[in-house]
Amino acid sequence: MLDIALVHYPVCNAKKEIIGAAVTNLDIHDIARAGRSYGVDNFFIITPFADQQKLVGEIIDHWRTGYGAQHNPDRREAFSIVSICPSLEELYSNYSVKGLSRPMVVATSAKVQERTLEFAVLRQRLADGEHILLLFGTGSGLTPEVMAAVDVVLPPVGSRETYNHLSVRSACSIVLDRLLGVL
Amino acid sequence: MLDIALVHYPVCNAKKEIIGAAVTNLDIHDIARAGRSYGVDNFFIITPFADQQKLVGEIIDHWRTGYGAQHNPDRREAFSIVSICPSLEELYSNYSVKGLSRPMVVATSAKVQERTLEFAVLRQRLADGEHILLLFGTGSGLTPEVMAAVDVVLPPVGSRETYNHLSVRSACSIVLDRLLGVL
Repeated sequence: MLDIALVHYPVCNAKKEIIGAAVTNLDIHDIARAGRSYGVDNFFIITPFADQQKLVGEIIDHWRTGYGAQHNPDRREAFSIVSICPSLEELYSNYSVKGLSRPMVVATSAKVQERTLEFAVLRQRLADGEHILLLFGTGSGLTPEVMAAVDVVLPPVGSRETYNHLSVRSACSIVLDRLLGVL
Repeated sequence: MLDIALVHYPVCNAKKEIIGAAVTNLDIHDIARAGRSYGVDNFFIITPFADQQKLVGEIIDHWRTGYGAQHNPDRREAFSIVSICPSLEELYSNYSVKGLSRPMVVATSAKVQERTLEFAVLRQRLADGEHILLLFGTGSGLTPEVMAAVDVVLPPVGSRETYNHLSVRSACSIVLDRLLGVL
């Protein structure tokens, strides 16, 4: 079982200050579509801001029950995995409310971090049925505090190039393919 | 050597009619960023429409020489690989104008097609230095006529799920990782 959380607060900006990032509409669409295509169970949009929650709620409703759902049933199905959660703390506690153990929490980063777990190992754990929660940061990435509190971190995706500035949409798609893709 | 062309005409709509699709700003950004991160040499935006070429030209200029370039040098570097070309025919003839042979033209598709080349084989050919041009269709994908005129087609990316509706941004990122990614 695989869940994804796209974190908008707390994240870093380019100056490594802690900020709350605005939700990007295409992040929701692209990650929902990739998530559904790779069999992700839940895709959580993490934002504590009421106006952002309202906006995301309207986007979700449009594609799940509104005109968008009639117009594009494939998009409706992608949005079936999307929900909003105000914070990672609340996400973790929601699992226990539902009678579930906290999943293994796996962060992603564009930089090499401590406590790395190789893709092949995580791929096998997923295949074995372990419940995993993958965290993706918006802005310039997850804060050191969030990173310190997770169980493990995946290595950065990319090539031999020293340049590595993927959008979170690209990074998430590549991570899902490495964990669940079939050649 | 690897080039990418993002085709906006001719492509199919959901009813399989031949249309010209509008350029999406985030397609340019995401594919330029992924392209540069994976060492792509050229990323061509294919559109015959003058107003679309003007819009794309302004976006490229903003990030390559305008305010965007000062504000975000990483994005400037991503945009260094982007250019506009009115048609695939002109793209092919431009290679010979530059004294280059036509590269092997490889289409991508969300459906299984004839003349499939496996990812591992194409990865090896790239590693051997062969010049490859990858085509990605916007809208609902490349037309049968374009597909019939390419040299080979990559298999669809994805998982064991029957649902497969990736954005072109996601699909392109995953294809680049399969061809050039380092675990």
